[in-house]
Amino acid sequence: MEMSNPYNQDLDKNPANYVPLSPLSFLERTAVTHPHLTSVIYNEQRFTWEQTYLRCKQFASALHQLGVGEGDTVSTMLPNIPAMYEAHFAIPMTGAVLNTLNTRLNAQSLAFMLDHCDCKVLLVDTEFADLIEQTVALLQVATPVIIDVEDSYHAGGRLIGQYEYETFIASGDDQFHWQLPNDEWNAIALSYTSGTTGNPKGVVTHHRGAYLAAMSNVLAAQMPAHAVYLWTLPLFHCNGWCFPWALALIAGTNVCLRRVDVNVILEQIRLHRVTYYCGAPIVHSMIADAPDSLREGINHTVHGLIAGAPPPTSVFTRMEHIGFNLTHVYGLTETYGPAVGCAKQPEWADLSVAERVARNSRQGVRYHLQQDVAVLHPKTLQPVPWDGSTLGEIMFRGNLVMKGYLKNPSATAAAFKNGWFHSGDLAVVDPDGYMRIRDRAKDVIISGGENIASLEIEEAILLHPAVSSVAVVAMKDDKWGEVPAAFVELRPQAPAVSTEELHQHCAQHLARYKLPKKYIFGELARTSTGKVQKFVLREQLHEK
Amino acid sequence: MEMSNPYNQDLDKNPANYVPLSPLSFLERTAVTHPHLTSVIYNEQRFTWEQTYLRCKQFASALHQLGVGEGDTVSTMLPNIPAMYEAHFAIPMTGAVLNTLNTRLNAQSLAFMLDHCDCKVLLVDTEFADLIEQTVALLQVATPVIIDVEDSYHAGGRLIGQYEYETFIASGDDQFHWQLPNDEWNAIALSYTSGTTGNPKGVVTHHRGAYLAAMSNVLAAQMPAHAVYLWTLPLFHCNGWCFPWALALIAGTNVCLRRVDVNVILEQIRLHRVTYYCGAPIVHSMIADAPDSLREGINHTVHGLIAGAPPPTSVFTRMEHIGFNLTHVYGLTETYGPAVGCAKQPEWADLSVAERVARNSRQGVRYHLQQDVAVLHPKTLQPVPWDGSTLGEIMFRGNLVMKGYLKNPSATAAAFKNGWFHSGDLAVVDPDGYMRIRDRAKDVIISGGENIASLEIEEAILLHPAVSSVAVVAMKDDKWGEVPAAFVELRPQAPAVSTEELHQHCAQHLARYKLPKKYIFGELARTSTGKVQKFVLREQLHEK
Repeated sequence: MEMSNPYNQDLDKNPANYVPLSPLSFLERTAVTHPHLTSVIYNEQRFTWEQTYLRCKQFASALHQLGVGEGDTVSTMLPNIPAMYEAHFAIPMTGAVLNTLNTRLNAQSLAFMLDHCDCKVLLVDTEFADLIEQTVALLQVATPVIIDVEDSYHAGGRLIGQYEYETFIASGDDQFHWQLPNDEWNAIALSYTSGTTGNPKGVVTHHRGAYLAAMSNVLAAQMPAHAVYLWTLPLFHCNGWCFPWALALIAGTNVCLRRVDVNVILEQIRLHRVTYYCGAPIVHSMIADAPDSLREGINHTVHGLIAGAPPPTSVFTRMEHIGFNLTHVYGLTETYGPAVGCAKQPEWADLSVAERVARNSRQGVRYHLQQDVAVLHPKTLQPVPWDGSTLGEIMFRGNLVMKGYLKNPSATAAAFKNGWFHSGDLAVVDPDGYMRIRDRAKDVIISGGENIASLEIEEAILLHPAVSSVAVVAMKDDKWGEVPAAFVELRPQAPAVSTEELHQHCAQHLARYKLPKKYIFGELARTSTGKVQKFVLREQLHEK
Repeated sequence: MEMSNPYNQDLDKNPANYVPLSPLSFLERTAVTHPHLTSVIYNEQRFTWEQTYLRCKQFASALHQLGVGEGDTVSTMLPNIPAMYEAHFAIPMTGAVLNTLNTRLNAQSLAFMLDHCDCKVLLVDTEFADLIEQTVALLQVATPVIIDVEDSYHAGGRLIGQYEYETFIASGDDQFHWQLPNDEWNAIALSYTSGTTGNPKGVVTHHRGAYLAAMSNVLAAQMPAHAVYLWTLPLFHCNGWCFPWALALIAGTNVCLRRVDVNVILEQIRLHRVTYYCGAPIVHSMIADAPDSLREGINHTVHGLIAGAPPPTSVFTRMEHIGFNLTHVYGLTETYGPAVGCAKQPEWADLSVAERVARNSRQGVRYHLQQDVAVLHPKTLQPVPWDGSTLGEIMFRGNLVMKGYLKNPSATAAAFKNGWFHSGDLAVVDPDGYMRIRDRAKDVIISGGENIASLEIEEAILLHPAVSSVAVVAMKDDKWGEVPAAFVELRPQAPAVSTEELHQHCAQHLARYKLPKKYIFGELARTSTGKVQKFVLREQLHEK
């Protein structure tokens, strides 16, 4: 039957009509078509697209000379500086996989990740020299080659590696003949996610997905050619939601930002006429709350993508008032960052601010290039009615879904059960088909844009000898969105433990941003079968 | 080696993370996310995206009931009316291939095509009833099922088929469970191109390419969400350059247009605030040349894509003056329509009109999603220097290149020789990397946006007993861009033949638009080996 289909005969793929999809192609095209436009700005540094491409080829060539290639992992411990942008191209150009480490993690977590991914080369900003030295001391598998990245705009820090970044890339060939992946399904990046249980999981994404996610961002954000984009979102967060590649596609300008500081943000927006940026609610809140004087001279429309913990209605309202245009998006590391967006219906423009904000602050609808996003009954997989009240689990299906978890087939199989990627987030669907998240995956706390697994905090607290049970839940916080709050049951015969003592204990085991902001001692609410009822704890928390 | 790569282990494709790329997905998404926005306008008719999707599902279901499926061809003989838009989705939804016939062809050409593609079902606008009856009488392979499409805005015409379109689709199920292709390489469309030699070739395109071409159009045209697009370009021309699918992607509005009439065009632009349209230079010329009164009330910016014969500098200049924003694009049926575009550099905005037009009227650079377009020495395949004067052949490589020619492996192999698709068009590259076509593929005449193969005209003329040799070349024409001009050598002993007699002879064999507009009798310029030198003939023509 198949054989008799004339449309499949003598019409095969060949080098002229088939090329694997890869976002690396975007950089090459833009370097050729817009060589003199500005690619990257960082304080007084400026690069053109031609320069960025040449530097990336040099960087890739130097890595290649080190023996880096397909199947290898190159990790970064970098803030949003030009080297981090270049890493998003140069590392995959060698065939290797880019692993961006969260710079806020502690040595234990980092060591787990570097061991798990067999990190071969590690780029380290000098700010993190001490932390990485501690990390390396903990490694059990292999010690990576370390390349120090010196940032002339950052004082302090030390050189701890075998190479210095600029010297290293200068040793490479700017005419290096890099290759596209031979298969678009090849891995491009590895991002560790702090799941709700156990060790971090390594989300593996591929070239095809990164290509399509970048494009889908352009459509969702309605980014025109040559948009100027400010890097408020950490590039280490699911590859900056794939925006590094989107900016290369549209020949835009990347304005780097070492740390989130509202004065600097608004200065950069004014100075470079920034039109786009992304971030957690806290970034947008800072901008909205800044004194008017800081926003003086910004007379153009600035567009922001916002994703994060609870539907930040207040942020939307404030941003409307100062004329910033926010679009709500939603996704997970497993979906290349955002894969749902609150697409604005033209008729919303005529609503009152309050009505419009109510619509805009929802998670929304599937991204243009995500095949399907649905809110399904977790067991039956039937779609919930569009009634704004029936809870279901958000599930994804399509090309903006990861390959799976590295070296973790059971977690991969669980995530993809029944042909859907299970987000673990619970939502309702409004009558117009727009999703609203009602409950985050039970155990994740999203603080300042960072996912914190409550389990990790619980495990740390349980190390204290006086503690018998613990449950950590998210507590609303004006600044951070959410912060952890710990409900603690002490052992009956144990000596009294003070909040201060428990906090000191936690500080020995957890990164600072994961520390609970509140400790409540007492018996935990449980079901008849003894399971802790976190939703009751949350209610207790907010009643107080 | 491959086996030891952890990024390829237990990380396979599955239904949750891999979906074949197909532009059909765009329609489904937009029907769900923007159900009430207007999809199609035709005079007083209006459809929403929800309605269009339901109608397409019904249409696909009805075709499925007829037995249409994978490997089958469904042809259309339709102007730019809603049924033609729907055909771009409904036919591929069945797994079948859409073959859009050029409504300006004659019965002989049409019969060749319908036989060649084993057309199973043919949609016919009543205007073409007579022509299709003649065509069907010539068929040698199989007679297709004919579905008449009645257009209430067109008087005249007859019903000749077994079904009437609205009744036919009403017989289908609007909840039809259509399937995406199981392979994105599956054919989506078949378009016959009038090549320079012999019979028309059937260009086969696939779902993956149509998906990427649609997206690449959005990027090249900078079409925002919900753009309003006027169908001045025939949908039968390489599927309207893939814009039907692009409009579904951005949830835009299609304004249908039965025939190109400048009064109607400007009326529709004003009435529906049309912001985008495409076409051959003649369409844009008409708009530019229209009396100012016809453009009254059009106060918004209208963006046009222009492709066609000679670099139409004058059209660009006139359009600048009336405030229409033109972008030059270039491509072939084999490249899904445009795959090169004259991307505007921001600094051009500061140039004088003449300088800007000189830059804008070039063919330009590769499309965002076309991997590579280069001007190469036809033999050595080395890139020509970017000197604005060295001629080479434009060649394409990437995902916006056809599968090949249907049932024509030798033509397919020739087109893809050495890993490039050979356009046959000769160009130079300016120092900024922008291509300029200097000579069309030797034998093609582009008249009012239609490709006319000179060989076909030559063959018709040679049927006249008095003619011994003939060469047809393009002659510049203010209205049509180019028209055919015939250089004719008569047999030495033959009786004299008048221009009028030869023209009558041609009219019996050729479609009206292919008829030469000038006949020059005399000896043909030839090389020493006897080959006709067309470039000399062209010079003679323009000296006269």
